This record gives sequence, C-alpha cells and structure tokens, in this order.
Amino acid sequence: MTAPRVLVLHGPNLNLLGAREPHVYGVTTLAEIDASLVDHGRALGVEVECFQSNHEGALIDALHGARGRCAGVLFNPGGYTHTSIALRDAVAAIGLPVVEVHLSNTDAREDFRRRSYVAAVCLARVQGFGARGYLLALDGLVAHLGLTTR
Amino acid sequence: MTAPRVLVLHGPNLNLLGAREPHVYGVTTLAEIDASLVDHGRALGVEVECFQSNHEGALIDALHGARGRCAGVLFNPGGYTHTSIALRDAVAAIGLPVVEVHLSNTDAREDFRRRSYVAAVCLARVQGFGARGYLLALDGLVAHLGLTTR
Amino acid sequence: MTAPRVLVLHGPNLNLLGAREPHVYGVTTLAEIDASLVDHGRALGVEVECFQSNHEGALIDALHGARGRCAGVLFNPGGYTHTSIALRDAVAAIGLPVVEVHLSNTDAREDFRRRSYVAAVCLARVQGFGARGYLLALDGLVAHLGLTTR
Amino acid sequence: MTAPRVLVLHGPNLNLLGAREPHVYGVTTLAEIDASLVDHGRALGVEVECFQSNHEGALIDALHGARGRCAGVLFNPGGYTHTSIALRDAVAAIGLPVVEVHLSNTDAREDFRRRSYVAAVCLARVQGFGARGYLLALDGLVAHLGLTTR
Amino acid sequence: MTAPRVLVLHGPNLNLLGAREPHVYGVTTLAEIDASLVDHGRALGVEVECFQSNHEGALIDALHGARGRCAGVLFNPGGYTHTSIALRDAVAAIGLPVVEVHLSNTDAREDFRRRSYVAAVCLARVQGFGARGYLLALDGLVAHLGLTTR
Amino acid sequence: MTAPRVLVLHGPNLNLLGAREPHVYGVTTLAEIDASLVDHGRALGVEVECFQSNHEGALIDALHGARGRCAGVLFNPGGYTHTSIALRDAVAAIGLPVVEVHLSNTDAREDFRRRSYVAAVCLARVQGFGARGYLLALDGLVAHLGLTTR
Amino acid sequence: MTAPRVLVLHGPNLNLLGAREPHVYGVTTLAEIDASLVDHGRALGVEVECFQSNHEGALIDALHGARGRCAGVLFNPGGYTHTSIALRDAVAAIGLPVVEVHLSNTDAREDFRRRSYVAAVCLARVQGFGARGYLLALDGLVAHLGLTTR
Amino acid sequence: MTAPRVLVLHGPNLNLLGAREPHVYGVTTLAEIDASLVDHGRALGVEVECFQSNHEGALIDALHGARGRCAGVLFNPGGYTHTSIALRDAVAAIGLPVVEVHLSNTDAREDFRRRSYVAAVCLARVQGFGARGYLLALDGLVAHLGLTTR
Amino acid sequence: MTAPRVLVLHGPNLNLLGAREPHVYGVTTLAEIDASLVDHGRALGVEVECFQSNHEGALIDALHGARGRCAGVLFNPGGYTHTSIALRDAVAAIGLPVVEVHLSNTDAREDFRRRSYVAAVCLARVQGFGARGYLLALDGLVAHLGLTTR
Amino acid sequence: MTAPRVLVLHGPNLNLLGAREPHVYGVTTLAEIDASLVDHGRALGVEVECFQSNHEGALIDALHGARGRCAGVLFNPGGYTHTSIALRDAVAAIGLPVVEVHLSNTDAREDFRRRSYVAAVCLARVQGFGARGYLLALDGLVAHLGLTTR
Amino acid sequence: MTAPRVLVLHGPNLNLLGAREPHVYGVTTLAEIDASLVDHGRALGVEVECFQSNHEGALIDALHGARGRCAGVLFNPGGYTHTSIALRDAVAAIGLPVVEVHLSNTDAREDFRRRSYVAAVCLARVQGFGARGYLLALDGLVAHLGLTTR
Amino acid sequence: MTAPRVLVLHGPNLNLLGAREPHVYGVTTLAEIDASLVDHGRALGVEVECFQSNHEGALIDALHGARGRCAGVLFNPGGYTHTSIALRDAVAAIGLPVVEVHLSNTDAREDFRRRSYVAAVCLARVQGFGARGYLLALDGLVAHLGLTTR
Repeated sequence: MTAPRVLVLHGPNLNLLGAREPHVYGVTTLAEIDASLVDHGRALGVEVECFQSNHEGALIDALHGARGRCAGVLFNPGGYTHTSIALRDAVAAIGLPVVEVHLSNTDAREDFRRRSYVAAVCLARVQGFGARGYLLALDGLVAHLGLTTR
Repeated sequence: MTAPRVLVLHGPNLNLLGAREPHVYGVTTLAEIDASLVDHGRALGVEVECFQSNHEGALIDALHGARGRCAGVLFNPGGYTHTSIALRDAVAAIGLPVVEVHLSNTDAREDFRRRSYVAAVCLARVQGFGARGYLLALDGLVAHLGLTTR
Repeated sequence: MTAPRVLVLHGPNLNLLGAREPHVYGVTTLAEIDASLVDHGRALGVEVECFQSNHEGALIDALHGARGRCAGVLFNPGGYTHTSIALRDAVAAIGLPVVEVHLSNTDAREDFRRRSYVAAVCLARVQGFGARGYLLALDGLVAHLGLTTR
Repeated sequence: MTAPRVLVLHGPNLNLLGAREPHVYGVTTLAEIDASLVDHGRALGVEVECFQSNHEGALIDALHGARGRCAGVLFNPGGYTHTSIALRDAVAAIGLPVVEVHLSNTDAREDFRRRSYVAAVCLARVQGFGARGYLLALDGLVAHLGLTTR
Repeated sequence: MTAPRVLVLHGPNLNLLGAREPHVYGVTTLAEIDASLVDHGRALGVEVECFQSNHEGALIDALHGARGRCAGVLFNPGGYTHTSIALRDAVAAIGLPVVEVHLSNTDAREDFRRRSYVAAVCLARVQGFGARGYLLALDGLVAHLGLTTR
Repeated sequence: MTAPRVLVLHGPNLNLLGAREPHVYGVTTLAEIDASLVDHGRALGVEVECFQSNHEGALIDALHGARGRCAGVLFNPGGYTHTSIALRDAVAAIGLPVVEVHLSNTDAREDFRRRSYVAAVCLARVQGFGARGYLLALDGLVAHLGLTTR
Repeated sequence: MTAPRVLVLHGPNLNLLGAREPHVYGVTTLAEIDASLVDHGRALGVEVECFQSNHEGALIDALHGARGRCAGVLFNPGGYTHTSIALRDAVAAIGLPVVEVHLSNTDAREDFRRRSYVAAVCLARVQGFGARGYLLALDGLVAHLGLTTR
Repeated sequence: MTAPRVLVLHGPNLNLLGAREPHVYGVTTLAEIDASLVDHGRALGVEVECFQSNHEGALIDALHGARGRCAGVLFNPGGYTHTSIALRDAVAAIGLPVVEVHLSNTDAREDFRRRSYVAAVCLARVQGFGARGYLLALDGLVAHLGLTTR
Repeated sequence: MTAPRVLVLHGPNLNLLGAREPHVYGVTTLAEIDASLVDHGRALGVEVECFQSNHEGALIDALHGARGRCAGVLFNPGGYTHTSIALRDAVAAIGLPVVEVHLSNTDAREDFRRRSYVAAVCLARVQGFGARGYLLALDGLVAHLGLTTR
Repeated sequence: MTAPRVLVLHGPNLNLLGAREPHVYGVTTLAEIDASLVDHGRALGVEVECFQSNHEGALIDALHGARGRCAGVLFNPGGYTHTSIALRDAVAAIGLPVVEVHLSNTDAREDFRRRSYVAAVCLARVQGFGARGYLLALDGLVAHLGLTTR
Repeated sequence: MTAPRVLVLHGPNLNLLGAREPHVYGVTTLAEIDASLVDHGRALGVEVECFQSNHEGALIDALHGARGRCAGVLFNPGGYTHTSIALRDAVAAIGLPVVEVHLSNTDAREDFRRRSYVAAVCLARVQGFGARGYLLALDGLVAHLGLTTR
Repeated sequence: MTAPRVLVLHGPNLNLLGAREPHVYGVTTLAEIDASLVDHGRALGVEVECFQSNHEGALIDALHGARGRCAGVLFNPGGYTHTSIALRDAVAAIGLPVVEVHLSNTDAREDFRRRSYVAAVCLARVQGFGARGYLLALDGLVAHLGLTTR
C-alpha cells in the first residue's frame, strides 16, 4: 500500500532562498527545505513531493494536478498571496486541505502584504518561523488528515 | 471563401468546469461548452476556435494571436478579471470587439469580484447565465459584427 | 392554454431612447425595442409585456405586480441601478428570476456606475449590446425557465 | 375633545409583508400590523393612522401632511433609509418627533444597510423586534409626548 | 412672436419654504419666489414657468417635458442633488442649459451634501444667496442664452 | 417555581447617569433606572438583575455568567459598543437573546458611534428613548421569549 | 459720503485669462473683467477694487487688508480653492461676507476640484458662468449687504 | 537546574472553549488544551504555565510578569487581536519572542478580523489548526529558542 | 486650607518606563516621574497624586474618582489613546480640565497612533518632550486653573 | 559670549491674533505674545527672535535662515500645518530641534486639522494652551537643549 | 540667431542641496547643478536659465514668464509636487512641454509623495538619478523639441 | 576583457509596439528600440541584451537570470507595474540597480496606473519620453554604475 501524498508548492522567488535577502529569509536553500520535508514526511508516513515555480499559471496547474493524487497541500504563494484571485479559485476548486505557509511574518511587513486572497479558502496558516514553518505545517496537516495520532 | 473566425478564450480554472464546485458553476464540462459553441457558430456562419489557459501570459499571447486572424473574441478571464491590467491592455491593443463572459453573476459574490479591469475596454458583458451565456454572447457578437441579420 | 408571461421593465430616461444622446444609446426608440421584444417573445412562446417609468416607486409597484402573474422579468433600472436599495429589495421580494439589462457597457463609464445594488439579487446580467441586449436577455431568461430547448 | 393623532408611515416593499421572505420578515401582514397599532393606540389614547407607499415622493408628501395634524410619527423608511436625503430633509422640516422603526436588525445585514440618513434627525430607533417593534415604538413615542404616565 | 420659455424646477421639501426651518432657509414662500421669478423673467423678456414636486420621477418627467419647449432650466434638486443619478441622466439627456440653484451654501453643511451628481452636467451653479439666488441664476441663464445684452 | 431571569448589563460611564452631561443623558440615576426595571420586570413576571462596570473584562465575565442562569440580556455597552470585538464574541458565545440599548440616538452623534460591533449578534436594538428605552427593550425581550402574550 | 467698497480678489493663474486655455476659460482678459466690475459696481453704488496674485500669502494679506475697509469680498481662489486651509482661515478671520466665484463649473472637472476648503466659511458661491459670474456675484453680494433694493 | 518556562496566554472568551460555538472552535475545553500543553512542554524540556483572562489589563499584566521569568510566550489575544494597541505595546515592551495563535483561520472570517495589531511585534503566527495549533506553536517557539534540536 | 489637587493618570505599559524600549521612552522610571511631579506640584501650590493602571476600566474608575476631589487631570492614556471611546466618554463626563500627555511624539510613529479619541474632549496636549512633558503640562494646567500667575 | 538664539515662527493669520475669532484664539495680540517670549527667553538665558508671515515661502526661508544661527525653533504653522509638505521638508532639512505649537487644540476641531505634515519631523508638540503654550514650549525646548537645569 | 531657451525651475528647499540630508540628496550643490546644466545646454545648442524659489507663487510667476520666451521647462516642484493644484494649472496654462524632475525616487518614500498633481500635465518624468537626472531630462526635452538628432 | 552587461526587460504587450495604439505609444517597433539600445550601449561600452515576455513568471525568471551576469537592468513592467508584488520581490531579491521605464506618462492616465509596486525597490524611473526614454535610462544607469564619466 502506498503512503498518502502531500504536495509542497513554492511560489515566486522562493527558488532564490538562501541567496536572496538572507536577513529576511535566512540562509537555508530551497533544496535543503525540500529535503528536510521529504525526510520529515517519511517519518510521518506521508510521501512529500515538492514543486516551485515563478509562474502563477504553473502554480494553478500544479494545484489542479494534485486533485485525486494528493491528500493535502502546503502552499507558500509568495508575492502572489496578496494579488491572485486565480490562485484562490484554484485552491477552492480542488477541494483539498491547503495550509498556507510564509517564511516571514507577513503581517509585520508592508501594508499590501496584509491581505491574503488565498487565506479564506485555506485550512490554516503558519508564518514567521522561517524554514521550520514548513515542518510545523506538515505536522499540522498530517494530524488534520488523521494520518498521525498526535 | 472562408467563414469569419471568432476566438473563445477561457481563463484560469475553467478547465475544471463540471468537476469544480458544481453548485456554483454547473456540471457541463469545458469540452461540451466548446463543442456547443463550434456548432452554434457553424449555424451562424462563423468558425469558432477555443483556447483555455491558466497562464495570464498565455492568454495575452492568445489575444495577440487573434489580431488579423479573427473578427472578434469571447473572453472569460476568470479570476484575472479583477486583477489583470496586462490583460486589459492586451484587449485594448488588439483592436477587436471583445465580449466579456462570466458563468456566475460575479456581482453577487465577494466584493473583490465587483471590479473588472477588462470591462472598460470590452464591447459588452454577459454574466450569470452559466454555460448558456457563451451562446448568447456569440449571438450578440455575431450580430454586432453584422454577420447576421437578427 | 395561455403562454407564460415575461415583464420587460424600463427605468428612468429610457423613454427618451432614440432621441437622447444617440452616440451613447443608439437611434432605436423604446417603442421599437418593445415591439421587437413582443415579436421575439411570440416566436419563443412567451407573452412579453412592457412598462417604462421614471418613478422609482412605480417600478417597485410594477415588480410587485409581476408576482403570480409573470414567469420572469427583464429589468433595465437605468440610473436607479446604482442608487436604489428599495428596488433591490423589491427584486428580492418577488421571488422571480430577473435579468438585469443595460444598453451601454456601464462598467466603461463613470465610477459611480460601477456598483449595481440590483445585481446581487438578479439571475444574470447583459450589458453593452445596445437594444439587441434585450433580445439576448430574453433568450437567456426563456432558456433558464426551461420554456425553450436551446 | 379629539385624541392626539400619530402617523404610522411604511416605506417601500412593506406592502408585501407576510408574503415576502417570511424567514426575514415574519408572516404577519401589514394590515394586521396596522390593525394592532390602531387598537394599541386606542388603548393609549391616541388615534393611529397608517399609510404605506413605495414612492419616495409620496412618503415625503405624507410627512408634510402630518404637520399641524399629528403629534408624532412612526416611520419605517425601508430601503430608502440608507439612500434618501430628501426623506431626511422632510423629517427635519416637519418639526415632529419621529421614531425610526425597522422589522429586522439592519445592522446585522449588508454593510450598505449600516448607514441611516434618517436616524440623525429622528428622536429614537427601534429595530429587530419584527412587527412587535411598532408597538414598542408607539409606547415610546406616546410616553415621550407626555400623553401617558408610564 | 412668443417669448422664450424658462422652466424653474424645485425639488423635494421646497414646497415648505417659509415654514420649514426659517433660520436655514428664510421666510419667503415658494409662491413668492415663483412670482418674483415670473416678474423678473418678464422684465428680461422670457416667460418663466414653475414646477415643484417631491417625486424624483415627476422631476425627471418635468425635465423631459422641457425639451423642445423651453430654452433653459433653473433646477434646485434639493435632497436629490446628492443621491440621484437618474436626475443627472435626465439633465444630460435633454440637451438644454441647466443652472443648479441652492438656497443654502450646501458646501458649508453635512459632508454628504458636498457631492452633487447633477453638477457635472449643468452649465453653472448658484448657491447660498437664499431666494435671491434664483434671480441671479435667471440673469445668468438669460445672458448665456444671448437673450439679453448684459 | 422561580421566575425567569433577565440580566441588565450597563457598560462604562453609565454609573455617572444623572450627574454626567444631563443635557445628553437626562437626570435619572442608574439606581433609579435599575429600580424601575426590577419593578417592571416583576409586573411582567421576570426577575431582573442589574450590573454595571467600567471594565470590558468584567462585562465579558458578566455575559458569561448569564449562561444557564438567565433567559435573556439587556445590554448597553456604552463606549465599548463601537470598539469591542471581544464583547461581540461574548454575546455570540453565550447563545442568549441580547437586546442592545442606548440612551441617546447614537446615529445622531459622532461618526465613530455609527458602527456597533455588537449589533450584528444581538436580537434587536432600542436607542434614543433615554431611560425609558430600557423598559421598552424589556417589554420586547419578554415578548420575544414568549413569556408574555402581548 | 463715500460709497461702500467691495474687494474683488483673483487667485493664481487668473492673470493669464484670455490667453490660457480659452476653450475652458473664455477669451475675456482679467483687465476687461475688472473694468466691467468697476463699472457695474458704480451702477450699484459700490466702489470695486480688484487685486490678483499668484501668491497664497499675498491673497491672505489682501483678505486681511479688507478688514475695516471693505463691506464684502468676491473671491476666486483658483487652484488654492481645493488645497488652502490658510485661505479658509483668513476668510473666517476677517468677518466679512465673502462670495466664492469660479469661472468654470469646477464640479464638472477633476475629482480633486470637488472639495472647496473655502466654501464652508463663505456666504455663497457662483460658478460656471464664466466672466459673467463675477457680475452676478456682485449683484448678490450688494443685495445681501442691503445696499440695493432688488 | 530548572527548565526554561513558557507562558501560554489566552484572551477573552477562550474560557468558554468546548461550550462556545463548537462548530467554529471545536469541543476541546481550555483545561484540556492547557493540560496537553503542559505535557507536551515537559516532553520538550520546558515548563509551561497557562493563564486566561477576559480583561485586557490582566493580559497586559501577565505579559509584563513574564519578563525575566519566561523564555517566550504563546499568545491567543482573541477579540483583542484586532483592537488593542495596548497589548501590542506590551508585547513589544517585554522583549520576549511571542507567537500569536488563533484556533480558527481568522483571515477567513469577518473583515475586521483581518487586521492584527499584535502581529507586527510577534515572532510568528499559527492559525486555523484548532487546539492543535498551540502544540505546533510550542514546537516552533521551543525550536526558535534553541531549546530543541529539531 | 488644603492645596488644590491634581490627578496624574498613567495608562498601559507606563509602569515599565525606564525598562521598556529606552531608545523610545528614555531611562527615567515612572516612580521618578511621579516624584518629580509631586515636588513640582508642591512648588506650584498643588497636591499631585499619581496612579497607573494597565486596565482601561481602572483608568475610567480613576477619572470618575477625580470628580469633586481634584481640580484637573494630567492623562497619558498610552495605547488606549487611539482605541478607547469609553475613556473619551469618561473624560467628557467628569467635567474637569484634562491635559493629554505623551512621552513620544506620537504623530511621528505608526499611522494608527495618529488618531486620539481623547484629544477632542481634552483641554490641551503636550507630546514628544519625554518625562519633562508632564512637568510642562502641569505648569500649563495650573496656570489654566488660575492657581498661578505665570 | 552671546546667548543661544531661538526662532519663534508664526504662520498664516496669526498676525490677526486678538482681533480674529477671540472665542477661539483669545484676546492676546501677537505682539504681546512675542514680548512675553522675549522676556521669558531672557530669564531662561536665550535670545528669542520672532517672525510672522502669511507666505509659505517666507516661512521656509525663515527656517532656512535659522541654520547655523539658532539653537532651536518654536513653530506654529497655522493652516499650513495640514497641507504643506514643503514646510515639512524645510523642518527636516535644517537639522534643528523644532517644537510645533498650536493655540487651540487642533485635534478637537475639523477632521482636516487632524493631520500634521510637520509633526513627524518635529521634536515635540504643545497645543490647546492658548498663548501660554508658547512659553511652555520654550521651557521644553530650552531644557531639551540642555541650556537649563530643570 | 539666438539659441532656444530652456527654463530650469527648482522648487522649495532645493537651495539647500549639498547641505540638506546628503544621504538622501547627495553632496552636489544647486549652483553646481545649474552650472552643469548651462554647460550641457550649450553643448546641445540651447540656452539654459535657472531659477529657484521656496515660494509657490514665485514658481507660478516663473512658469508664466516662460511663455513666449522659452521652448520648454525642466521643473522640480519639490514638496509642492504633491500639494499644489495651482502649479498644475500654471503648467497646463503655459502650453509648453514641461519635464518633471526629482532627485530621489519619490515613489520609494512616504505615501503622500506618491501623488503628483503636476504629473498629469507634464510631458515626462525623470526621478531617482540624483543631480544627473536633470541632465537626462534636458537630453530628453531637447530631443523632444527636435532640437537635436539623437 | 568583456564589457559589462545590461539587461533590458520588456513586459506584457510591448511586443505589439508600433502596431498597438500608436497615438499612445508611437510607431517605433520593439525591434527598433532594442537595436538602438544595443547600438547606444556599444557606444557607452556596455553590452545590452533584450528580452520581452507577456508572462509574469518569465519576467521573474529573467530578472533572476541577471544575477551575477549583468551589472544592471532597464525594466518596463507594462501592466504588471501596478499589480505585481512578485515582480517587486524579484527586483528586490536580485540586488542589482534596476531602472523603471515607461513609454507613456503613466501618472497622466487612469488612477490605477498611479501605483507602481516596483518603484519602491528600483533605483530610478524615466517615463513619458516614448522610445527615447530607454536611451536616457541607459545613460543614467551606465553613469550610476560608474561606467562612464558623464
């Protein structure tokens, strides 16, 4: 029997992690985050697959692709968080539990980062914990799915 | 002599039609809509070609591609309706009559769906009639183009 | 057996059609529009009755009068579209499908024409097709009512 | 000696009470409300006269007509509450104590029902008690007028 | 040869002039104002006809009725000034020079009196001069029409 | 058998009633209001208990304390009306019918008194009747609870 | 006995009248306007003195200078109308009746011309009559001062 | 050597957890949450102490009391989240890492819950995971403090 | 004969002065400020009493307690300045001259610190002078009360 | 050794002090205020020089002129407070401590007086103490400069 | 034959360049900028004349003075950019191509610097290049005027 | 030794230049602009490479690709200027000087073109000079980079 699958979806500019503004986003690279998520998922009994794109459309496609194949999604929409109704519609359309993740505490930044179009159709949100936030979100999602006993 | 051509352009998430939130969008699939549009176009004497993409840029490209090749466009920009100035500029740039179509009555939904950036540069708008709205819009466009006598 | 009845309701200033600002509203008169609607209705198997008033109260009265007598309404509230909560309440109160019609593309005009109080309680909207829009709206309403097979 | 007179003024759509959206407005008809007000007024020693219109102008006329003839007014402006400065001016102009009455708790509904143009020139407001609210308002108005000892 | 005709149109609550809040609006009655306008018009060589209504629709009708019959209009829309897009459309539709008149200096009152929907389609505005303002506006309109030499 | 109980809850500064700004709030003291409410409650067959506090937290505690002990609440949140989401949550949490009462007509005062956070979760509102408003609200609440036949 | 004096104060850019954007402001020069005002004043029995400056401070100085020397002021604050609280304070401070005059119908132009800081402390306003508006305003001011019998 | 201490601070109405609106907040009681936090803290090597109050001032006092005694704070400010600048100042003043926790996904609720005054001075935020969110937040805080190796 | 009494009221978080963010608020403790105020009061011939609380309700209680006992109040409402209508009402209710004091220049900080609900009912405001501001405010209040000759 | 110098800068309309709206601004003239400031400055060991202008540019010039010559500035920008970014830039540019002074409590007046462009670049603000406020501000400035020991 | 003339107009506080906030505006003085512009103009075949004033009125006068004498203008309105409708009107009135220049990138600063009243009537804008921006703007203006071949 | 490289990045719809709305954007094609930039760059000693895409994601990718390879960027984000936070983040992330270029004077167009999300993280902006603006921007960028002596 195969393990349930969780999609981890990273939005625009997250490919630069580790290189981009380390005082804001830390020095861990995206590859390292993805590796730790796969490891942690394995420990939790879920298979984690990761995808990053700077293209809003590719992120929509990826969300669509998770239908019928994944049990849930961790989604960091990056800058699209605050501007994309199309991504919101995609999250709502796929009918899966989606956890919004942000590395920084977006509410402590510019005013225009205060509105998340995606939030209203997500299950939950974790922000401000840096790379560690993905692991916490995975814990939370897996528990929500009843795949773990914590 | 070839028939005049009409481009039908579907924006993000519309590929999920029939599957996605049927209580909002109905059970007809996009393929069925496209087929009915091709048929109806044939009856009206126009050749209908259909394209869907979740990528804003691909929609812009498609609009550009209609220049000099199509007589008009039916456009459902989906979630991009309310956020895309680039699509508005594309509609304005191509100099063709464009009819905005929405399946649902967007004015009866969230506040952020009340603003259409595209509307001001379109010829007309049809919304709230579900899949049937495309057929009505095609009737209207063809009549506007003087290709029919109704 | 009598045919189902559809009320066509025209709001303020529409009595001037054909005379008023023809570059915006065209040269067709209201009487001509009404005649074409009656004809088209007959072809579709519905009896169309038309009423115009510049009085908000008279429009409310007319909507009330459609209860139990008509199967649906085409409504062009004109300038009241953007200011009348009383008309919105009337539309909601009568429990009939109402299609909002506008000759011009109101979203392409002044900002204050962007908000429709009526839209949220209507079935659908057609705008920007000039006088032809009423015919398209009638097609859509009749199809919605299941009175035709298209 | 004749009893003091109180005008009860009902605005747009209230003629449909009992029929219209009973889950919001209850099943009592306007005629029943008026009858209970006349009875209750008699018990309090005031003569109650009732008037309903869907016409803003007719409501203004009725307010004007109360000058020099009535001691006070109960006024449910319905949807005009939120849009009519003319009615506000009429209330201010007649120099009588006016109590604003609403069947539903308007503050618990759409945002655009939050503003009352009439409120600032009224004596008091009662809302959310359904048909019973008129009786409470009559009690309050009569007491305010010093016509009763409670 | 008949004298050119000017319509003087008074909106809601102006019938109460002289009685209503004299500290704001003065003690002159509307009949007196109308009489002085007729007299003054005669001196200027124009025939003045006056109409007052509390009904928005009746004011629209009156504006329509001035087409082809009057050379210009003096219009005090009262409380409708700030809320009526239908009246604005009527003024725009009739294609006559319309001068907006207000007894009080509306800009010195509540904020919601600061916006005039009618202003943008009027020729000019006179406010704050009380009853005398109508005479000044008539002077201005007549001069604008080239009917006088001043 | 004990009588049903109604909590009357007074918010900040209401302890000063009679002393504070009598031109706005009248000369009746809070003790007198409470006494008249107890008397009136007895006549209606309910036991009225009264509590005042200037502390938002104490008001929340009092609302919580009414659960399972009272049949309904009259609540004048004073200045907290316009600023307290915590009180709104408390009203929503206790699942009792709550009637909002204000001595003055808050809509006729400063703009910031126009928004009530509490209103949307209350049953009804009475304002502008001074101390008498509590009695009317009690009448309304008792009737709503079916404890009286009026 | 000397005639009462009226100050006519012209704000920024009005020195260019006749040259500047004649389609908006007409072809009459400021000197011609001033001459006609002096003439008209003489006919009405008042002495008119005129002053123009592009300097906000100089306009304030001029208003101050009118105290104790002039009976009233005609003031066209030009672009300062919409931005100068200092001019508003000056108008309020001098305690003279001031009539605001605008050549164009400012309410029919950009949104930022809709707010007049000066209006609330002026006696009256005349706008949209072009150069003639000054004469009408002078008529009105002189009549207000009781210096004429019209 | 004593274990580092973490304060868990619950704001208004959270004492009702399990009883209050279980469809929104779940059926777990606050005591159960606190117990699970103490247990989980013990497993992580930190001593967890819990405090709840409906009083804004008591929450401020509790934050102050954590200075010099605790290593970090989990804080669910409830309804005060959106209205309290005083709590924000307290969080900023104590110089400890504070993690904001919300049971529900506040961004998916009313508009006024979209603004968190506290967020900008917190380390991180976890919301939407129900009671489990506290445990995730504790994991995150402990890891941030370097007290664990995950 | 006893000296007139002045209440000095410190709001939330001011108890931390000297410890909290010294780069913003300086190193002087609240006890030192209070001592200097008592000393300075004695020199001016007034008895100064000081009170600090983090509880909004306790601050309201303290304001009430000053009635009939104190001649005036110095009030630093801290974070409640910008959110508390209840405190505003309390200041208005007690009928004493109240001087608002802020250590920092609140207008130079976050936008939400720009609005003071309390200001409109205070006599005066002093801000930005740090601890010294209290002494200046006391000078000003004492002089206003006519208790000193400066 | 010469005494340090302080510039006192008065903005528009302050030259009318004593004459202008005494119920708002008191009866003291500007000359009297200046004299008392010079006296008080002498007592404090600073040389006070005073300047008033109604010209925004002259106030900028005066601020510039204080560079390298004065130790600090007291500035009452009058009506320019709320509209002048140029004055704000001037205050920021000269690098001197500037104390903003207002005679009245501007926050208790019209809304448009609530925003001070200058505040954010000033050291401190004193308002509402009338003429006495200048003296308090001078005390505060001198103390801030370390020129006195209080 | 004389060379075409270009006016370079510097607004408030620019006289302090080099001295004022060098981290924002650089160390070049205005005289140096003017000299480099004269030189560069000579190379391009235009005569550059420079003028600076802190007085809004003087800037308006200077713009007026350019009519019929200059071929174009470089204009840095400084702080007046965001507040002066009078300057906007002056730019529009003179009918010359005007290029707006800013030393800093004003869009990257405070929100109130985001709106330029002048922009809409200018030909073009250059900002953020420091002193060099004037030279680029001169290049652009000269090329626009067809005075150079680049 | 290779010349430093500058990326010229064109956003959506710019591929239509020359064809699209020539009255707004001129008749020069993008290929011609690119050629002139390469030429001009060669003259300045930099290698210019050009890229256009209608895809937001492709523009982000291109910005990322400039890291470590280019010395600076000229960026015309077209319609994405006003809506893309993701592009803003990309500009901020790459740590290169970016100059924003617009063909038209965007501030003179629709309101929604007034906000640039990108501006705050760019070095400078040039707009309104048509195709020539790119050359000016290149001059400015090269000078900023110290690659030229002008």
